[in-house]
Amino acid sequence: LSGMPSDALLFLSSKRKSILVPWDLTMAKVMATADSVIPFNNFNRQTEKALREIASSLNLAPAAKVEVSRRTPYPVFLTYKKELKGLTVVCRKHGIDARVEHGRAIKDADEIARYRTIAGITNELIDLLEENVRSGLLKTETDVALFIEAEGRKRGCEGTGFGTLAAGPQRSFGIHAFPPYTAGAFATQGLSILDFGLQYEGYTSDVTLTFAREPLSDLQETMLSLVQKAHDLAISTIKKGVKAISVGAAVDDFFRDAGKTMPHNLGHGIGLEAHEAPSLRNRDDNTWILAPGMIFTDEPGLYDEAAGGCRLEDDILLSNSGVEVLTKARIIRL
Amino acid sequence: LSGMPSDALLFLSSKRKSILVPWDLTMAKVMATADSVIPFNNFNRQTEKALREIASSLNLAPAAKVEVSRRTPYPVFLTYKKELKGLTVVCRKHGIDARVEHGRAIKDADEIARYRTIAGITNELIDLLEENVRSGLLKTETDVALFIEAEGRKRGCEGTGFGTLAAGPQRSFGIHAFPPYTAGAFATQGLSILDFGLQYEGYTSDVTLTFAREPLSDLQETMLSLVQKAHDLAISTIKKGVKAISVGAAVDDFFRDAGKTMPHNLGHGIGLEAHEAPSLRNRDDNTWILAPGMIFTDEPGLYDEAAGGCRLEDDILLSNSGVEVLTKARIIRL
Repeated sequence: LSGMPSDALLFLSSKRKSILVPWDLTMAKVMATADSVIPFNNFNRQTEKALREIASSLNLAPAAKVEVSRRTPYPVFLTYKKELKGLTVVCRKHGIDARVEHGRAIKDADEIARYRTIAGITNELIDLLEENVRSGLLKTETDVALFIEAEGRKRGCEGTGFGTLAAGPQRSFGIHAFPPYTAGAFATQGLSILDFGLQYEGYTSDVTLTFAREPLSDLQETMLSLVQKAHDLAISTIKKGVKAISVGAAVDDFFRDAGKTMPHNLGHGIGLEAHEAPSLRNRDDNTWILAPGMIFTDEPGLYDEAAGGCRLEDDILLSNSGVEVLTKARIIRL
Repeated sequence: LSGMPSDALLFLSSKRKSILVPWDLTMAKVMATADSVIPFNNFNRQTEKALREIASSLNLAPAAKVEVSRRTPYPVFLTYKKELKGLTVVCRKHGIDARVEHGRAIKDADEIARYRTIAGITNELIDLLEENVRSGLLKTETDVALFIEAEGRKRGCEGTGFGTLAAGPQRSFGIHAFPPYTAGAFATQGLSILDFGLQYEGYTSDVTLTFAREPLSDLQETMLSLVQKAHDLAISTIKKGVKAISVGAAVDDFFRDAGKTMPHNLGHGIGLEAHEAPSLRNRDDNTWILAPGMIFTDEPGLYDEAAGGCRLEDDILLSNSGVEVLTKARIIRL
């Protein structure tokens, strides 16, 4: 909303005035836009003091509504209520955050164009990763993770959109490997997972490749086959007007019929953050309806303590002309 | 508390029973310890459902207290209250989180021994970074950041404790550079900042070096000199029983007398997270008293849009025998 990349408070009034209160005034001068910028130091670095004094400076009407983010912790909310006597402090599940969330869920033409660029760089890296793992140039989890960090930045990315997960066969049983990557071997015999995203002009991609080095067990072959089918099944059910929950449910049902369980949600929106709306989760409270302009992941996965894990994640754009798979993630057989 | 490295709910009863509800059951089997482990899938991936059913399974007395973390958002707290009818749901600023925070602020003998190991690896990397920047082997922000990622893991670290900030002279004006590091030049003429930490067995170090390549302007020389003096001043004021706020205030006063302002707090505890208690911030609500076993940063910094930034950050252990500077961060002149 302001262009400020680091910690700051942002106040927006219904009269369309914006006030930014940054920790880092120098950064704000260089990067942020707001009607006025007041250093956090002016309020003795106290959020409550900033809130009280800025509310006062805005000459709000008695009992005027001041809404704070739905992420506000309960004890902090009580402090705000106390500090803003005479005003009505509001913190709603479906308030201002939900409006921002809905706005961000539908990408406009500029954002979609940017996503084509991000997907292009991501796909270029996917090809290079396959090539360099095949050739033996990239041997360890650290090798592949740092290759992405370096090559992404060379192509103008700010960095990775979240911590890269690179898990060789011994560690791919985890949805999110811990540690995220190590000095250990990658893409040796069995299943290895590589989950990464590139951040470009604020927006992030999010893809997962599975590297499968033969010989594989029957269970590993079954997992690869089911995950590929689930991935394609999801794409075939994505349409404008479809309930997002039903896409997640279709994949959960498919795995259940095969005697398997996927331990995570099928997908999530991507944007300025790696996890945005809409969610494809198969859960009653998921009320999202798929609509043109949405960009989200399709990432079925199966995991086994002994056989390791397999996940295949692509970024999907739903447009008026249909479904477009922006990225070229794949199961890579070695 | 459980050893689980990824997302999970943890329930602790006053009868010393622990129940872990992980997203990733396989990871929990491998890494976590708890009296019982129930997959989140069993509750349809709904936190409220897990809370309700587990509270029920514990046969709590009517109106028994159930405390949730002080980080719980206000609307989520309302949901919990609604779901846990017949029980007393509590969310306090100075409740269970504060007890954990206080426990974590004082490191025991094992934790201190671990920190000596972490500091040793960190110091080894500081020396290598100086050597390789001097020799011209590490030329870009990406070079230094990825050198840390690779060399830390080779020495058994899980990774970096937070995203490394490497900012060459054009970008060091920011407290936290954005992007954190780029393909651009590092340690060319002027002031460059390198802020990093290594995570080892869960715990993280946190140091900042400033690389100053001559010729420097008078303002840059003044900033370097003031930051070094502020760093040393802080160490001279750290003693058992001293108020943490007074250490921060001493440095803020020192800079103010020199006509400068430091735009951030002087330091913070380190541990399982990069920012822990105690804080050295110069703010009325900082009630921490320095005590043996505390490990925290001393990180004065000054920033200027044109001249760039300078920060010097070490990790300090306060023990019964006095102050020990664990790390060897420094201003490196080139």
